[in-house]
Formats: sequence, structure tokens, C-alpha cells
Amino acid sequence: MPISTANFYTVNHAKHSVKTIGILGGGQLGLMLAQSALPLGIRCVFLEDVPNCPARLLGKVYSTEQLDDFADACDVFSLEFENTPLSSAKFLEEKTGLFPPSQALFITQDRLKEKHLFKTLNIKTVPFVAVSTKHDVKNACDTLGLPLVLKTTRGGYDGKGQFVIKTVQDIDTAWTQLGDATTTAPLIAEQFVNFDREVSIIAVRSQFGEIRYYPLVENEHRNGILAKTTAPASNVEQLADQAQDNIKKLLEHLNYVGVLTLELFVTSDGLIANEIAPRVHNSGHWSIEGAVCSQFENHMRAVAGLPLGDTRIVKPSVMLNVIGKYPNLTQILALDGVHYHGYDKQENAGRKIAHITIMPTDTDKLNETVAKVEALLNSD
Amino acid sequence: MPISTANFYTVNHAKHSVKTIGILGGGQLGLMLAQSALPLGIRCVFLEDVPNCPARLLGKVYSTEQLDDFADACDVFSLEFENTPLSSAKFLEEKTGLFPPSQALFITQDRLKEKHLFKTLNIKTVPFVAVSTKHDVKNACDTLGLPLVLKTTRGGYDGKGQFVIKTVQDIDTAWTQLGDATTTAPLIAEQFVNFDREVSIIAVRSQFGEIRYYPLVENEHRNGILAKTTAPASNVEQLADQAQDNIKKLLEHLNYVGVLTLELFVTSDGLIANEIAPRVHNSGHWSIEGAVCSQFENHMRAVAGLPLGDTRIVKPSVMLNVIGKYPNLTQILALDGVHYHGYDKQENAGRKIAHITIMPTDTDKLNETVAKVEALLNSD
Repeated sequence: MPISTANFYTVNHAKHSVKTIGILGGGQLGLMLAQSALPLGIRCVFLEDVPNCPARLLGKVYSTEQLDDFADACDVFSLEFENTPLSSAKFLEEKTGLFPPSQALFITQDRLKEKHLFKTLNIKTVPFVAVSTKHDVKNACDTLGLPLVLKTTRGGYDGKGQFVIKTVQDIDTAWTQLGDATTTAPLIAEQFVNFDREVSIIAVRSQFGEIRYYPLVENEHRNGILAKTTAPASNVEQLADQAQDNIKKLLEHLNYVGVLTLELFVTSDGLIANEIAPRVHNSGHWSIEGAVCSQFENHMRAVAGLPLGDTRIVKPSVMLNVIGKYPNLTQILALDGVHYHGYDKQENAGRKIAHITIMPTDTDKLNETVAKVEALLNSD
Repeated sequence: MPISTANFYTVNHAKHSVKTIGILGGGQLGLMLAQSALPLGIRCVFLEDVPNCPARLLGKVYSTEQLDDFADACDVFSLEFENTPLSSAKFLEEKTGLFPPSQALFITQDRLKEKHLFKTLNIKTVPFVAVSTKHDVKNACDTLGLPLVLKTTRGGYDGKGQFVIKTVQDIDTAWTQLGDATTTAPLIAEQFVNFDREVSIIAVRSQFGEIRYYPLVENEHRNGILAKTTAPASNVEQLADQAQDNIKKLLEHLNYVGVLTLELFVTSDGLIANEIAPRVHNSGHWSIEGAVCSQFENHMRAVAGLPLGDTRIVKPSVMLNVIGKYPNLTQILALDGVHYHGYDKQENAGRKIAHITIMPTDTDKLNETVAKVEALLNSD
């Protein structure tokens, strides 16, 4: 995949010509992209089949059956959901341009391709093998050692489509749960990583090849779902260069335009790349208040062919996801330095329905305020 | 006007019951109010007859002929334009509640009532007299001295509806320009104030009587239109208490809920109150990035019966209005720490069509970046 600028979408910079960006997907990421685009004079419309999707609050939603109308309504295209059909992505890319390029979807829609790309680019990752039969699983246990994680290569998110095999006795159960997926694509078996903590790096690349990096942040998951992001991560001075180097290789190799996210494990051996998301990411929501220019605005700037904004932090902040149940807003907002972002979604167990960013004037009060918000989120 | 809580709108705080706020007016202030309300799970709709008003981007716009439908669509009401008919305001106030109260409109729609209120509350203001005939103007020149400013009592904004009388020879011209207005209401003649600079204070009062103050900011006008706001104002340590005391008297006297703005002159005799705006204000736009909780979010919080947010500054910032002509967005956004807010309005001489807030990571670069943005705004 050579780097090429031949198919770049060119915009008129005399004033600013991108007026409408078509987004594949209409979830909360789409909503927040559109919110950040509005003050720039850019509107978003969405391609989404889920009824009452959050993004409907800020722009017209087209069903996938209306792909042609969607295509005609937009100056350029982007996405907030990577598991969009590749054929639609390519169709829009050829029409007027898709940022990031469909090649990034082609890779990230498949964990095996993603891991192979890490290897190709000398990005340190966990040992893995492809698995198509139960026999392959047994071989993987021998090759990689136990425990290992068996995962679908396609479509898993928030901890779904995964099984941790601790002993060979688990193989049957794992196969019963995930074996059916092999009718469409192989599974991937990965060595289990003993990590100290999880971090992520978000970077943005413009249509002119400029790259800017947000600081490394630390992520805490509960039940496979991101619960908390601390920005910036502490004690990562020795890791930042490697993280930036890793994501830079990915951005340049893919001739990427827009925001890319790389999740990494911090281990005793240093950083190990876990997975990439070709889009704005939950671990970057803090940047709405916590960075000079948010991941959402920077993605919109990149897609529209505008210059990138400053990715540095304003003040340290912590982002907490609101999962399943809405809190008492009065109690939440009574705490100074608390920013609430609801997504207008129905309550449902395990569903991300809002997030809260905590960035008090007095940084010394950050942990104390976070503890108060966590207590409110966990109360009945 | 005694302080009363009898007609306060009560909301259910079990979770949060205000879902739709009806805003009188649909300009950029309405747009930014709605933007700040969206993450709180609150939507805005608007009462506005101007076609293609900015607020249409974020909520349904009702014409004044559709007042009943507008009223039925909302849980509570507010405004972004104070010259709305008082009868409509009272109708909505009696329906489910209007914040600020119609009494605040009754006062601020008339410069004479406003100035009388300043006197009643012992808020230092400029000497003034009511003027209904050309003879009254001559008397005003004797009473107040020259120069003086003759103003309509109703409807003027951005420097319109004013005439500075420097000598008695100007009286005829002044009367030719403004005398017609006396068929509906008297004019006001005010002593000309020799001020060093103009500042404003914005404060917000909740439904529970809590008051929070934004810092004093300094405003520069060009051709009667606000051009630049510096937040915070410099060298105002001796003035902040008086400004807060003044606006507190107004908020409490009016039993006010929401954001109130008080414009003041800094003179050799200290602060002199100029005028009030019963709403979010152009001199508070910096607070979107520059304060922990913006004037827009705090107004929406107050109207919805939610607790107020922190009004302290995040970092020093400067707001520049974009007047008449859109800039080259690519050049503007290439500068770090620049936040652009377009209002989706047609270009027109003297019209506010966007604003830019400059808040670089390195505060030492603030003035340098402001100068660069000003140069871009003034270039062809």
C-alpha cells in the first residue's frame, strides 16, 4: 500500500467550500462530530438504519436504502462506525472522497488484518494465530501458551465476541460460543497479555500530511466496556515517543486523513499495540473540554480540508461513561467543573448513554470530584 | 416590586423534567443557547419571524402567528431578544413560566425605566432627563450640559437610535432624526460620559436564588458595535466589588432567573452603569471556551431549574466579532488556540455574522495571536 495523494479530495481554500459532510453511522460519535462542525459552518448528515439514533438531533438521517440520496447530499464523506459495508464506503470514496480512506476500514474490520499490519510496520503486538477449526484452537494453545483469548475477527466491540481460554478444558465451551463465526471468517487466538494498565493515543492527520497527537490517556474498563479515561495518563514519559511513532506509521502507511485511535497495553516489556479504531474514540471524549481543539473538531477540520487545531490539554481531566442508567442531573451538575453530555438514548443495561468530563478549576480537586461523580453514578 | 417566589416554575428534580425550552427570538444567541442545552438533554424551539434565522439549525422555529403552538410545545420559556412584545411574554409567563420574568423586559424595553431603576437601587448612573419636545431638548442642554446624548427609549441597539449633541446648533438635526419617535414614547437625554473604557459584568441567578458572577470583561466598540472583548479585564480589582454589588441588586430586585448583563463605564469617578441586557450577551461569548461553564449553559441551567456551573475563567481569552464579511477560514484556523463560531447568516455591512475566541495554550501568545486574527479580519 504505497502512499499516494492522487485520489485526495481537493477543496477550495479561497474561503471554505465544504458545507455538508456525510457520516457513515449516526451514534453519539456522529452527534458530537456534528456539534463540533456546526460553528465551523459545516453540517453533517448521516447514514444509519437504527431508529432514533442520537445524531438525528443535528442532521438528516438517511437509511442505507437511501445511499444514493445520501451521496448526492454531501460534499465529502467520513464515518463514526467502522463496520459499515466496504462496498458503500468505496462507492462514496470514489464519488467525492472518504476520510479516512476505505483501506483503513478494510484493515480494521478484521482483527487478523489489523494484527498483520502491526507486524508489517514493526509495531509491537501480542503473538497471535488464525483459527478456523477446533483443532486450530488446540494448536494455538500449544503455540501461544495459556491463557489465551479467542476472538471473532469481525464485528466484536465492548468485550463482545471474546472468550478467555484458561485451560484446555475451556476449549469446548469457547468453540460452542464462537465456532459458528468461522463460517464467514476465521477467528483469531491471541496470547493473553499481563498488562499493568491500558492507554490509548489519538492522533489526527490532515489532507496535507500534518499530524498532531493528543497526549496518552489511561483507560479503565469494566465488563469489557470503557468506564473511565484519565487525561493525561500519569508516568508515561518513557512511552509517549513509542506511542507516537506507532500511530505515525499507521497514519502514513494508510495515507490516513482524520482521527485515528490506537489502544495499547502497558506491560513490563513496554507498550504492546492492542487494536486501532479508524475514527474518533470514547477515550477522546475528554478532549471536548480538556484539549484546546477536541478530537471531534479536529476530525471535522481534517475531513473538510482545513488546518488542524492544537491537541494540547487545557487542564487535566477525567471522563466517566454513563452506562445503562441516567443519573440525577441535579446532583451531578451541583459539582463544580462537571460537564455532562447526554446522547438522548434509551436506558439499557450495558449501553453507553452519556459521558461526564470532570475538569475542576482547581486541579487538586480532580480526584475528589471524580469520586463524588462515581458515587452518584453507582447510587440507585 | 417585592421579591416573591410564588410564581416560580417548579421542576421535578427526581431526575430532570425540563425537556423543551421555548426561546423568544431565533438569532445567534438562540443558536448558542440551544448548542449548550443539547448535551444536558434539553432541546430548544424558537419564536422568530426572521426567515433563515441562525437558531433554525438546532430547533423548530415558530412564527409569532403560531404563538399558541409554540406555547404548547414547551415546558418553560426564556428569551434571547428583549424587544419581544410584552403581551406575548406575559402570556407565556402565566402558562408555565418565563425566565427572566416579564418584569425584566418591561424595564429593559425602555431606557427611561431602566435608568430610573438604577436610581431606585442606588446604582450610580449618568444624569438623564426625559424629552418629549424640541423645547425639552433645549432644557436638557441647560440641565445636563453639553455634550449630551439623545436616545430613543425603545428599540435601539448597536449604536442605532442615538445622536450626540455637541453644541446647541445640533439640536435641530438631532430632532429631525429622532423627534418622530416621540409619537410613541419620550426620548431620553443623557449627560455625555467621559469614560476611560467600557466593561461589562455578566451574572446568573438560579431558581433557588443562588448568584454566580463572571469576571469583569473589557469591551471595545467600533461604530457603535462591539468589536472586541478581553476576559478578564485588566486592572479592575478595585471595581469588581461594585460591579457585583450593582448586578446583585438588579437580580434580586427583579426576582430574576437566568443570565443578566450590565454594561458599565470606567471613569475617573469609578463605575457608572450604562445599560442592562436581560439575556446572554455578546460580551460573554468568550465564556464558551474561556469559562468553566459558559453563559449559555448557565442560562439554560437556570431556566431548567438546574444548579449553576462554575463561572471562573479557564485561561485568559479575547473575543473578536466578525462583522459584515466572512474571513478565510483556512487562515483563521491555522492559528493555534483560535475558536471559530459562525452563525450561518448572510454577509451584510455592520451585521454580526460570527465570532472568534482566542485562547492559546501559552497565554503569553494571546496578544500576538489576537493581532494576527485582527489582521486577517481586516484584510480583503
